[in-house]
Amino acid sequence: MVNKVGLKYGPAVIEGVTKDSVLIVRLKELILATRTKFQEVQVVSTYDFGRALMLDGYIQSTEADEFMYHETLVHPSMVTHPSPQQVLIVGGGEGATLREVLKHSPVKEAVMVDIDGELVEISKKYLDFMHKGAFDDPRAKVIIGDGYEFVKRENSSKYDVVILDLTDPYSTEIASKLYSREFYYEVKRIMKRNGIMVTQAGNSYFYPRTYDYVLSNIKANFRIVREYWYWIPSFSYACNFIAGSDVLDPAGMNEDEVNKVIKERNVKLRLYDGKHHISLFKSRVLKSDFIRE
Amino acid sequence: MVNKVGLKYGPAVIEGVTKDSVLIVRLKELILATRTKFQEVQVVSTYDFGRALMLDGYIQSTEADEFMYHETLVHPSMVTHPSPQQVLIVGGGEGATLREVLKHSPVKEAVMVDIDGELVEISKKYLDFMHKGAFDDPRAKVIIGDGYEFVKRENSSKYDVVILDLTDPYSTEIASKLYSREFYYEVKRIMKRNGIMVTQAGNSYFYPRTYDYVLSNIKANFRIVREYWYWIPSFSYACNFIAGSDVLDPAGMNEDEVNKVIKERNVKLRLYDGKHHISLFKSRVLKSDFIRE
Amino acid sequence: MVNKVGLKYGPAVIEGVTKDSVLIVRLKELILATRTKFQEVQVVSTYDFGRALMLDGYIQSTEADEFMYHETLVHPSMVTHPSPQQVLIVGGGEGATLREVLKHSPVKEAVMVDIDGELVEISKKYLDFMHKGAFDDPRAKVIIGDGYEFVKRENSSKYDVVILDLTDPYSTEIASKLYSREFYYEVKRIMKRNGIMVTQAGNSYFYPRTYDYVLSNIKANFRIVREYWYWIPSFSYACNFIAGSDVLDPAGMNEDEVNKVIKERNVKLRLYDGKHHISLFKSRVLKSDFIRE
Amino acid sequence: MVNKVGLKYGPAVIEGVTKDSVLIVRLKELILATRTKFQEVQVVSTYDFGRALMLDGYIQSTEADEFMYHETLVHPSMVTHPSPQQVLIVGGGEGATLREVLKHSPVKEAVMVDIDGELVEISKKYLDFMHKGAFDDPRAKVIIGDGYEFVKRENSSKYDVVILDLTDPYSTEIASKLYSREFYYEVKRIMKRNGIMVTQAGNSYFYPRTYDYVLSNIKANFRIVREYWYWIPSFSYACNFIAGSDVLDPAGMNEDEVNKVIKERNVKLRLYDGKHHISLFKSRVLKSDFIRE
Repeated sequence: MVNKVGLKYGPAVIEGVTKDSVLIVRLKELILATRTKFQEVQVVSTYDFGRALMLDGYIQSTEADEFMYHETLVHPSMVTHPSPQQVLIVGGGEGATLREVLKHSPVKEAVMVDIDGELVEISKKYLDFMHKGAFDDPRAKVIIGDGYEFVKRENSSKYDVVILDLTDPYSTEIASKLYSREFYYEVKRIMKRNGIMVTQAGNSYFYPRTYDYVLSNIKANFRIVREYWYWIPSFSYACNFIAGSDVLDPAGMNEDEVNKVIKERNVKLRLYDGKHHISLFKSRVLKSDFIRE
Repeated sequence: MVNKVGLKYGPAVIEGVTKDSVLIVRLKELILATRTKFQEVQVVSTYDFGRALMLDGYIQSTEADEFMYHETLVHPSMVTHPSPQQVLIVGGGEGATLREVLKHSPVKEAVMVDIDGELVEISKKYLDFMHKGAFDDPRAKVIIGDGYEFVKRENSSKYDVVILDLTDPYSTEIASKLYSREFYYEVKRIMKRNGIMVTQAGNSYFYPRTYDYVLSNIKANFRIVREYWYWIPSFSYACNFIAGSDVLDPAGMNEDEVNKVIKERNVKLRLYDGKHHISLFKSRVLKSDFIRE
Repeated sequence: MVNKVGLKYGPAVIEGVTKDSVLIVRLKELILATRTKFQEVQVVSTYDFGRALMLDGYIQSTEADEFMYHETLVHPSMVTHPSPQQVLIVGGGEGATLREVLKHSPVKEAVMVDIDGELVEISKKYLDFMHKGAFDDPRAKVIIGDGYEFVKRENSSKYDVVILDLTDPYSTEIASKLYSREFYYEVKRIMKRNGIMVTQAGNSYFYPRTYDYVLSNIKANFRIVREYWYWIPSFSYACNFIAGSDVLDPAGMNEDEVNKVIKERNVKLRLYDGKHHISLFKSRVLKSDFIRE
Repeated sequence: MVNKVGLKYGPAVIEGVTKDSVLIVRLKELILATRTKFQEVQVVSTYDFGRALMLDGYIQSTEADEFMYHETLVHPSMVTHPSPQQVLIVGGGEGATLREVLKHSPVKEAVMVDIDGELVEISKKYLDFMHKGAFDDPRAKVIIGDGYEFVKRENSSKYDVVILDLTDPYSTEIASKLYSREFYYEVKRIMKRNGIMVTQAGNSYFYPRTYDYVLSNIKANFRIVREYWYWIPSFSYACNFIAGSDVLDPAGMNEDEVNKVIKERNVKLRLYDGKHHISLFKSRVLKSDFIRE
């Protein structure tokens, strides 16, 4: 049984949850605290979650539970697509989204565009449990640059899957244009007709207005829009995701179909499978009536 | 967009999450702070969740999200049982579990046994959104007393459904014997042969050892054991539940069957339905590798 | 010996110390949480300091240690003046400064001007240990109004002592004009030639720039300026004070002279005496080299 | 004017103040977090105080304000002694007390006994602003060992000044025997007849019972006992000190006498001088009526 006493004296990290609440997590070590050109970055070692990356005061990924976030972001869309050969990742500087994408054998090229080159270098140096060598895969192409500009300048409709792995829509300025109606229009323009896109969408419960804004922007561009979410322990809240396509419907896959694709492509996973897929797309998206956002 | 600054100065409540982390939630009002014979009780008004009940430093129920907890605790077992006439609730002093149970038209008697009479009075006075008049239902029978002793002394096998709505197994001493192998043996003894029991089980991710202890105690007594969980925003973590029966299997219900029962019994709900039921029983139970419990 | 545990679960109040640090104090009760026309007001009951008043997130006065603040604010100037008959207090809504002023037998009229009438009513209702009946003294004259305007409109030079008992110069907008050069000019205008004024001045260590701004504004108006400070436990820092006069010098009083005045006027005190007076005016005012203000 | 925001997101350190309050200080860097054989040690870089040493969750010394603590601990006794040639320091592992002692030209030998050799090495490596080369002074003799045992085994009465620079009497087990009546008896035994000893004594306001216990133990052994205190910003409270002697009385020195000694011995100081000395010994020692210790 646990001896509950309170939060022990010593180093800790204060993380934003809502405007009116914070999570305080005890630290073993503060490995790095810096400011890149784009954001505040900390690499910390926590008792509860092992090593963790923080951007602008929000935990992004931890050793303990990053697989919950990254598998849930990547695989529903990758599995739904019958042959994802050309994949674009916007954001995802830690390399874990890239790692998950490359697990799918059909992938021929995975382009990752992150604005923050310093963050990519920090991840390579301090967070090898994230990328696990993905940056060295010959199919990976890492571009340091503005994702919005990259998408806008691309003039062929070549992508099968586009994955938007960004900081929360309410957390920083740099992220917000990557959740706009205009951006999703450009994303669709560079996708093949039977392509599919997915974005993380922050938390719908605590930030219902922001979530609805993102959702409506995606709905304005795609015929089939599917929402899902999963609790991420180190976020202290659930993370929402929204997938959009004109052709493909992740909610249309059944348990066996999902498991068959995973097996055929020989994808090794910790959490995601047919059951998890069904659970995600059966779950209701919730929004608080109480939060002033 | 949200203006993120930090946690504002002023009144707040510090809530335990793990041994190494706390959630700090801003308060509008601290309505009541007292100690009953059994536990520390606070009734608070928060910005994020409205009015909330805290026991021994843990948020138990809030105006904003208590329905997520109580509907998910009560309905999977109530719906799985073809005719739940006799129901026992151990704990549940706020009256919300009783409220949910009484929504099922087959119920003839719902006995609620809570050790803390002062807490029941506090709930009646300050938390009417919890009980919503359930205490006054003629089918309700509220007994102030030790749940363990009550179950032990009962000598007929009369209950169709037993619902254990207790504080977390790791939070207080008074709760722990209500998660023991011996207690589940006694619970089974007073259930009908095709009865079903369900308990909330704290959080499996942050308290994997305690969770496994509870799970093994239930498995030692019931042939069919089903685990499920749901994220409760004000807990800042997911809450796990475990159902046990020798005959009934909640995971065997399909979406339409669940919806049919709800409709027949005319149960009015905010969250629970056939989809939610499927989502719950398809979801994987997760346990941290990092937590020292 | 003390059992040290950490940040305990339960209600608490978050108080500003510097831009980069906060004090979290456990609460027994949150007696009142409101917003007047001018400021956020909380009346709380703490374990460490008893009942306390908070304005805009800063503890102003507590049952345990308000005498340290109020005696140190009021008596050095009152004692230095040979016959303080006409006294003006700006701010001081709790009534404790008024209470201390009225202890001096020569006082014929003590005018207190506070902008926040709601705060005065709250103090009367919840903080009787502050005013201790001072509002009912026939020599007391309480005016609800803007202190700046009051001073500006007064056209006789009649005050022997002016006491500025305001919120910290860096804490709120409403306070800042009452620390300006122009205001001290007006204060001097309504003082008798051998009058003396004193203001609390926030904390010089953590807010050196603000402190120096206030100090220079006083020096621009008065020939004799004396700085002193005292640690106030519930502030978690020392509080600075600045006295100004063209004639009177508190630092010129010796221990026996101070004690003689106290005795003659029959002033009953808990802390202030000749020794305390000497200690205050011998102590060096300190300012941090590290703080970014 | 300061922009007040609240508890900012990011790394921080939680420091004990009382049983019912903590100070949270934002961190730039967590330079070292370790456990020696005797205590938890952290070296941190804060925004408010620069680099700081924490032992068992309490800030001990910071770059910004360590001079306030160390000058106030050391010089009143050193200056009161007419010829401090042989000095013993118990504790003081950071080397700053040694540094202050060695500023006095009469000192022939300064023996420092600290139980925690790892801490001394950490100080040498990370805290050079503390020792400033004092460890290399030929008059310094550093002994790693138990201070209690060292004093007990010493059999000549040779010390002019003994300085006890320990963790707070209520903070750790290892410190408590060094505040006992028996220990002060042994300290007196190894002092010359006109010697003087001084100890830091934690905080009298928040820990009145512990303080009175220490005070009575010193009074049981010395004829002349003088108490004084000073606010240390990074402690968020005042630190008390108690000096004991059978012959020398620090409170008997006047301002000029103190200044004369400082000048003759050519001691370079930031805070301590004749005025500071007078201020210290005129100040009343305060103890809370509210604290449950």
